[in-house]
Amino acid sequence: LTSKLPAIGTTIFTKMSALAAEKGAINLSQGFPDFTADARLLERASQAILTGNNQYSPMAGLPILREAIAGLVERHYDRTVSALDEITVTSGASEAIFDAIAALVHHGDEVILFDPAYDLYEPAVALAGGICRRVTLLAPEFRPDWQAFAELLTDKTRLVLINTPHNPTGSCWLAEDLESLWQAIASRDIYVLSDEVYEFIHFGESVVSVHKHAELAKRSLVVSSFGKSFHLTGWKVGYIVAPKELTVELRKVHQFVSFCTVTPLQQALGEHLTAFPEASAGLAGFYQQKRDVLRKALAGSRFTLLPCEGTYFQLLDYSAISDLDDVAFCEWLVDHVGVAAIPVSVFYQQAPEGQRIIRLCFAKEESTLIEAAQRLSFL
Amino acid sequence: LTSKLPAIGTTIFTKMSALAAEKGAINLSQGFPDFTADARLLERASQAILTGNNQYSPMAGLPILREAIAGLVERHYDRTVSALDEITVTSGASEAIFDAIAALVHHGDEVILFDPAYDLYEPAVALAGGICRRVTLLAPEFRPDWQAFAELLTDKTRLVLINTPHNPTGSCWLAEDLESLWQAIASRDIYVLSDEVYEFIHFGESVVSVHKHAELAKRSLVVSSFGKSFHLTGWKVGYIVAPKELTVELRKVHQFVSFCTVTPLQQALGEHLTAFPEASAGLAGFYQQKRDVLRKALAGSRFTLLPCEGTYFQLLDYSAISDLDDVAFCEWLVDHVGVAAIPVSVFYQQAPEGQRIIRLCFAKEESTLIEAAQRLSFL
Ligand SMILES: CSCCC(=O)C(=O)O
Ligand SMILES: CSCCC(=O)C(=O)O
Repeated sequence: LTSKLPAIGTTIFTKMSALAAEKGAINLSQGFPDFTADARLLERASQAILTGNNQYSPMAGLPILREAIAGLVERHYDRTVSALDEITVTSGASEAIFDAIAALVHHGDEVILFDPAYDLYEPAVALAGGICRRVTLLAPEFRPDWQAFAELLTDKTRLVLINTPHNPTGSCWLAEDLESLWQAIASRDIYVLSDEVYEFIHFGESVVSVHKHAELAKRSLVVSSFGKSFHLTGWKVGYIVAPKELTVELRKVHQFVSFCTVTPLQQALGEHLTAFPEASAGLAGFYQQKRDVLRKALAGSRFTLLPCEGTYFQLLDYSAISDLDDVAFCEWLVDHVGVAAIPVSVFYQQAPEGQRIIRLCFAKEESTLIEAAQRLSFL
Repeated sequence: LTSKLPAIGTTIFTKMSALAAEKGAINLSQGFPDFTADARLLERASQAILTGNNQYSPMAGLPILREAIAGLVERHYDRTVSALDEITVTSGASEAIFDAIAALVHHGDEVILFDPAYDLYEPAVALAGGICRRVTLLAPEFRPDWQAFAELLTDKTRLVLINTPHNPTGSCWLAEDLESLWQAIASRDIYVLSDEVYEFIHFGESVVSVHKHAELAKRSLVVSSFGKSFHLTGWKVGYIVAPKELTVELRKVHQFVSFCTVTPLQQALGEHLTAFPEASAGLAGFYQQKRDVLRKALAGSRFTLLPCEGTYFQLLDYSAISDLDDVAFCEWLVDHVGVAAIPVSVFYQQAPEGQRIIRLCFAKEESTLIEAAQRLSFL
């Protein structure tokens, strides 16, 4: 049995969450909220299950939800997209990203991504027979180097994978980054897959999105996630917006990967977004407060807090505390401090020498964040 | 933009269901029930959403559900499987099949399947860079020809895809077919993916399953679906049972395709199966009655009824009625008779010359079946 993914083990999220449960540690590793979603949305879902349709939805998603997504994109980004031809509902953002890569990357194609990168990108490219080229982002700002990017472009480059607000670093791109990307690829036959699942969790004035760059948008597939935007990571409802020609190819894959996504949950989300079009408007403020609580509670510790401009992840540099590498340090933390975190090196193909950074998820009750920070402050 | 799946359009299910809706026809095309599931199961799902966990489940599935599946396999097939290492919950049986193919088929590998074949097999193999070889099953019995099968085996054969009870034909394999398969591949480095989503819908004494063939089971991944077994095709919860070594590879893919499946629905299914371990026991009788109602109502028509030993699909030969090919005949039926069916030729790479067969789904209220049969009997 020759593995298709010989270098891949169990994801770090599974490992750390299992370890946290086993040791009874506070779990700030895997990114998910420990609070509940809007009760009105849960009530709608309950009703949809009890009295609604529990059979297959249309392959591209329920019309009510696709219309609501079109409205969301229109309001937030002033971009008009077709619910019929340009929006596809998927079983989580993961499936959207997997499908897009499977649809666009041919055997031998090259894909450029930015390191550190979310853990599913590279295996998805590998399964499509593609090869990843990486631009390394460096702490503490994690800004893309467009010179380094340009040097990676070849005739085989097919796709660029971007992610802003960025997991795991919490950094956000500037509008000029999108423009630099566009300038670099405009004359080439290259597509962009933009992972924007944290689009509503950004702490600057406004979020940078491919939706707002008209030319880039014509070449791009933009992914988002109701799991992130509505505190429902276990619902596994995501979506992907792309011009018709790209959507046609995407759906060819989607219809054979999962065919469609849970009908009653799509119905509930569609109704909720129709009733409350501004449902996600308060999300940035909500998480900014949690970020600030965590940062304040860690201010007196020996950790160095890196900037956090978006997502619900805060990076900590622990160089002043330990010489362990970050994987060993995270294992030690769970055992001896009772806090589970994610080592950032696992998101790099090759982590910068001597970098000692861990990631904390602050999508947690304030009391949980304060308790975790207190434990960490003893170090 | 070079398509990865140039020959693929929208699936026949999407097309025919849309056409049925547009024309107001009785939809016996896409396979899904028009009745509701057990109210107690829906109630549990509603409660799980309102008061339970709506965040990520463990990647392999909730333990309560995996334990229940292990119990089901034990009771029905007298086979002991490990909930921890051999069972994986997926976002529908589609995802299970897609993941298994992606995990096992390397670029250039050959996969043997039996024609007619469910429409997702070939594109999934193509996306993995594999090549399909086909054994044609012939009406009216659709028995596999093991001589023809043996002739397709090469050093590149990696996987055999089987499906019993069989969609679209409603035929079931005999125990001796599994033994013939085993004899043919035993000495080779070949795996088996067994699509058994209709395992509880069979009208003979007992169902033929890879679970019951100890040696074959060690080489196989067996797929099933709660959508089929609990009248909930829109919940998209399936599962796949495979020996640990195969499950390890399968999960490597699953964790990047969808990561996990809707948590509250897994919880509800786990609780329901624990409370009612025999929940699926009556399914065969339930559907046999529907089959018999449909067959009786069509007995006086000019259609020839093919044998139906399992699944919720009944094949009809319309040679006595029309010379149209089956795709054209199905379009004509929707328009002029108000019944939507599926042309069987779309499931073949190359349909037998002059074959005129359509598929009706009888997972419908008896009144619906009778009304459809009356319309068809005018022809
Ligand atoms: C799919 S589990 C991982 C959740 C997540 O996005 C993260 O922790 O980065
Ligand atoms: C996923 S839609 C198709 C449903 C089905 O299994 C069938 O009609 O054959």
